[in-house]
Amino acid sequence: MTNCNTTEAMTKEIEAGARAAASPGTEIVALTPAWGPESAEGWLDSFLSAAAVLDLLRTTEETFDAVVLAGFGEHGREGARELLDVPVVDITEAAAHLACLLGRRYGVVTTLDRTCGLIEDSLHGAGVAAHCVGVVGSGLGVLELADEVRTASALVTAARRVRDRGAEVVVLGCAGMTGLDRRISAELGIPVIDGVAAAVRLAESLVALGLRTSRVGYPKPLPKSRRWGR
Amino acid sequence: MTNCNTTEAMTKEIEAGARAAASPGTEIVALTPAWGPESAEGWLDSFLSAAAVLDLLRTTEETFDAVVLAGFGEHGREGARELLDVPVVDITEAAAHLACLLGRRYGVVTTLDRTCGLIEDSLHGAGVAAHCVGVVGSGLGVLELADEVRTASALVTAARRVRDRGAEVVVLGCAGMTGLDRRISAELGIPVIDGVAAAVRLAESLVALGLRTSRVGYPKPLPKSRRWGR
Amino acid sequence: MTNCNTTEAMTKEIEAGARAAASPGTEIVALTPAWGPESAEGWLDSFLSAAAVLDLLRTTEETFDAVVLAGFGEHGREGARELLDVPVVDITEAAAHLACLLGRRYGVVTTLDRTCGLIEDSLHGAGVAAHCVGVVGSGLGVLELADEVRTASALVTAARRVRDRGAEVVVLGCAGMTGLDRRISAELGIPVIDGVAAAVRLAESLVALGLRTSRVGYPKPLPKSRRWGR
Amino acid sequence: MTNCNTTEAMTKEIEAGARAAASPGTEIVALTPAWGPESAEGWLDSFLSAAAVLDLLRTTEETFDAVVLAGFGEHGREGARELLDVPVVDITEAAAHLACLLGRRYGVVTTLDRTCGLIEDSLHGAGVAAHCVGVVGSGLGVLELADEVRTASALVTAARRVRDRGAEVVVLGCAGMTGLDRRISAELGIPVIDGVAAAVRLAESLVALGLRTSRVGYPKPLPKSRRWGR
Amino acid sequence: MTNCNTTEAMTKEIEAGARAAASPGTEIVALTPAWGPESAEGWLDSFLSAAAVLDLLRTTEETFDAVVLAGFGEHGREGARELLDVPVVDITEAAAHLACLLGRRYGVVTTLDRTCGLIEDSLHGAGVAAHCVGVVGSGLGVLELADEVRTASALVTAARRVRDRGAEVVVLGCAGMTGLDRRISAELGIPVIDGVAAAVRLAESLVALGLRTSRVGYPKPLPKSRRWGR
Amino acid sequence: MTNCNTTEAMTKEIEAGARAAASPGTEIVALTPAWGPESAEGWLDSFLSAAAVLDLLRTTEETFDAVVLAGFGEHGREGARELLDVPVVDITEAAAHLACLLGRRYGVVTTLDRTCGLIEDSLHGAGVAAHCVGVVGSGLGVLELADEVRTASALVTAARRVRDRGAEVVVLGCAGMTGLDRRISAELGIPVIDGVAAAVRLAESLVALGLRTSRVGYPKPLPKSRRWGR
Repeated sequence: MTNCNTTEAMTKEIEAGARAAASPGTEIVALTPAWGPESAEGWLDSFLSAAAVLDLLRTTEETFDAVVLAGFGEHGREGARELLDVPVVDITEAAAHLACLLGRRYGVVTTLDRTCGLIEDSLHGAGVAAHCVGVVGSGLGVLELADEVRTASALVTAARRVRDRGAEVVVLGCAGMTGLDRRISAELGIPVIDGVAAAVRLAESLVALGLRTSRVGYPKPLPKSRRWGR
Repeated sequence: MTNCNTTEAMTKEIEAGARAAASPGTEIVALTPAWGPESAEGWLDSFLSAAAVLDLLRTTEETFDAVVLAGFGEHGREGARELLDVPVVDITEAAAHLACLLGRRYGVVTTLDRTCGLIEDSLHGAGVAAHCVGVVGSGLGVLELADEVRTASALVTAARRVRDRGAEVVVLGCAGMTGLDRRISAELGIPVIDGVAAAVRLAESLVALGLRTSRVGYPKPLPKSRRWGR
Repeated sequence: MTNCNTTEAMTKEIEAGARAAASPGTEIVALTPAWGPESAEGWLDSFLSAAAVLDLLRTTEETFDAVVLAGFGEHGREGARELLDVPVVDITEAAAHLACLLGRRYGVVTTLDRTCGLIEDSLHGAGVAAHCVGVVGSGLGVLELADEVRTASALVTAARRVRDRGAEVVVLGCAGMTGLDRRISAELGIPVIDGVAAAVRLAESLVALGLRTSRVGYPKPLPKSRRWGR
Repeated sequence: MTNCNTTEAMTKEIEAGARAAASPGTEIVALTPAWGPESAEGWLDSFLSAAAVLDLLRTTEETFDAVVLAGFGEHGREGARELLDVPVVDITEAAAHLACLLGRRYGVVTTLDRTCGLIEDSLHGAGVAAHCVGVVGSGLGVLELADEVRTASALVTAARRVRDRGAEVVVLGCAGMTGLDRRISAELGIPVIDGVAAAVRLAESLVALGLRTSRVGYPKPLPKSRRWGR
Repeated sequence: MTNCNTTEAMTKEIEAGARAAASPGTEIVALTPAWGPESAEGWLDSFLSAAAVLDLLRTTEETFDAVVLAGFGEHGREGARELLDVPVVDITEAAAHLACLLGRRYGVVTTLDRTCGLIEDSLHGAGVAAHCVGVVGSGLGVLELADEVRTASALVTAARRVRDRGAEVVVLGCAGMTGLDRRISAELGIPVIDGVAAAVRLAESLVALGLRTSRVGYPKPLPKSRRWGR
Repeated sequence: MTNCNTTEAMTKEIEAGARAAASPGTEIVALTPAWGPESAEGWLDSFLSAAAVLDLLRTTEETFDAVVLAGFGEHGREGARELLDVPVVDITEAAAHLACLLGRRYGVVTTLDRTCGLIEDSLHGAGVAAHCVGVVGSGLGVLELADEVRTASALVTAARRVRDRGAEVVVLGCAGMTGLDRRISAELGIPVIDGVAAAVRLAESLVALGLRTSRVGYPKPLPKSRRWGR
């Protein structure tokens, strides 16, 4: 379970969300990258975050059966698949996979508009973009989500926009929104998916079934000189 | 857990596959339709099977938290979503969702060539066709899969064909192939996914997260006169 | 010519629509399934209807040169192609084919919103979805179409919505709307297509040219045990 | 019925093919452009042909209920739709529409490889490209098709190539191949469609149903100065 | 540099726009077809224009290192590629290529609505349609663009419509709009691209890099009898 | 002009390639990231490279009118667009844009197979994937390209594979292949494009036309705490 930014408070929140979703017997370890952006909002942050998360994954002394990448729309997923021998599940794709099981079309509500393009590309890369009707920003930054009432209100407004485009299911497009799914679902009357929870369950499923990343497309990184930051 | 055909022996096999995949505490009940084809191979069988499975679901006295439809590529999925208040997961889509988490492209190996079109359409309808490189038949009918050695050999041959088209992960395209995944994976060196196992885990995940089918696209069937068979 | 539901009055109406469209010398026989839903509105009904229509086709003593399936968006088309040696034309695809000859984009107006997804998938399966800008419900159920003034008014409203999305041609998305095409076209000023009429003409064309369904993708159903209802 | 080139012999052949396919009571008038290429093979010829055919259509004193454009893949179709008040059917799209009714995928066999791109674009523009698996040249030029034995042999070879790519139906991709459909179908065992015949039947259907081109996308050409050749 | 219509004043304007965009040392020669429409607005005009432009290119005594086709959305591009040994760049594709370098999505504003379909097909044929969110007409005919204030105002209105659909960059969809890009960009605050300028720069680039049209898809026209107009 | 890896020799080579392609008057400055991988081969390297290149761009004291990112398929492009006020052109997209101007379909030949997926996604993100028939590896690593004879031979073999899939133009898929385009083109008889050269010319074009990245999708990075490496 890795946060994609350096804000410890958010790591804690993600950890709590993951624990709430996990099966009995699953142990959750939430890690914070040693470097990177304090919040990932846009392309520059996302690329910086990807390198920092990969650096974390290659150097951590923790052991684990699977990794959940808790940055919605952030880069790095395929690099982690090359690096690790255990399954890697990203909260973006995880939410989308479950959404497809619940309705014919889904939409994503997220933080700032500047992240919408990132998320679209991430869904495309994961092979689950076909039933996505759109990604809509709520106008709230990643570190502005703490006020649950304000956040829920902004997300409901955004969710109505994707519903008007045909979404039958809504995906919460930021790890920092974890835990708000039921509140917003109750208000909208349609299913709302928290990517953190979804990814934990999908990672457990892969582990239970003994499935690992294919090495055809994601072979181990070649041994070579790599410098991780200045 | 419903078989899509009337062959009890196959229901037993599916039940065993499902039990092997289920979490501790999950109870598996496998049902056989009271009517329909003895095996579903092609469009006519698939439509007949769909009606029979829906009839089973509307009349069964069993209670359950989720339904797994164990007919690979067979019709009926969306009807069950209208009919039931619990989540419905079809083994076709389930296998494809997990496959997308393990590699950039996947392929399906199935029974007779005549079922390939059905499976392609089912994957499209589920929103997971984008990364499928193809569906290839093994030449074996649904009721000819009992000889594990012969079946595994035919599936490996078919799997090599999808791998040559770029598949990094292989999906077993018939409920009757449940349990062969590890053997074939060992031979090919790439992940192989059993839809029955995948669907059980995904259904458990939806239940655990309190997620249900959206009623926007799948409202309850309207009350009206319906005659189920002559 | 098969109705997709068990309502005889609708079979009569479809028969009249077909006769009005047929060439001199073409004989129209309209059949009603012995079982199934009284009207097909949604996925459950559609799968039930598919089995009932296939049962009708395999048991009828009528002989015919081609079959028109008069359920807009309903399932069963490909099963009929396996079963029969004569051409099979579905009113959904037929209307779309003619629509493509009359404008760059077309839209469909139908009964209840719950049928829109079915129709979209049916057009996709038939290979004619590319130029469809959308399917829009009129809010009227299949058995509520008898009041022509009310129906026409609701359809015009729905048609304006697809026109606003770019439709240059409108398709009437229910067999029960047969005969309303000219009235609505006069009101909107753009071509309106009745699927029943379109399918009759296309079926005649295939027969006249000696064309039959390819057996590559639709081989004859295998001999096996099949039970058609309880 | 307009030939797309200036070769009278080919006009005669197209006329014969059209008459063989037409309903009783349909009168076929085959016209030859007064200018243009002696055969249309490639983009330059196609654009030249389009202007010449449009010039013919705007100046002819013949009257007719519909126009069939008998150049497979050639340009001009949409211009004719602007110009004329009667339905316009192009043999490219017509063959593809009927092919979609007979199988899940179709392929086109044509003359020289240089025309394949033209045909692909024409099918796309007509909204029927989704189920086309490919267009394959036979190596024979338009004016080399007279030797039926040689032509049939070359077409069968090309047809096997599209069948290997998944085609269940074959379309003959040149007006000059009219009449060879049954011979090649007998050899291959799958349906083969002659675009001239298909277009005649579709044009008759549109006329019988009182359908005309939508003026939304194809309004009448604006009055202005146009010079048609030097 | 060829105008696509016979209006000399417009050729002059295009020439000025091209000169303003060209590198030092590039010589611009602007040609007017000897025949064709006085303005190209719609399909009929476009096909007529294509033949006239190709006639001009095959007969001109000018020599040049590359050709720019200055008709936005007009036909003929691929014919010129067959005919000539030098690179051919069309202003439609050129503007779209540069637009893709400046934002994730672009839109086109053009003259009359009747040209929108043409432009869409041209972008598709050029392989750059994926990021186009739409083509919107301004209601002004090609020969009505002279009043810069009125034209700019109509274009800004149209540009706002494509921006609302997600366009981050705007393309001016008519050669006669050359020179208005900066004014409209200033008003909208997003980049605006003039196809004439874009095409000149791309043509220069191809020449500088020694790149020529591939003869695989665009072989030289075959020697044969062709009549160019009556 | 930034190399995507830390190998100075490769920066020199790219610089030479860029100078050979640049217009008179264009000054080329080639930079090497201070950290990152010695060569970018696969996803992990690519994400590391992206962060290192962005760090270079935000800290360099050089000034420039445009930036060329010389990593074929590597990440970072959109982050640079957020960061900088000048145009950013990536060699991947640049080569593809020019390829589309020279033929109907193009293919890419690259280094190791593990980079193919990266390149496909990059082309998709740039909006130019539609005409790409495939990306094929040559089996040579990035730092094994120095032996020109061996490299050219391996590339010709790979190029024949994309040509067999329909490529009419070949793109060299690694900055380290700069300068080999003419040799390989001479051998294959079809155009071959060097991304470094293409990007230099496209960047010059954008500068000359006064065009800059749209800030709609790529707004300036928000001020916040970011740590660039440990």
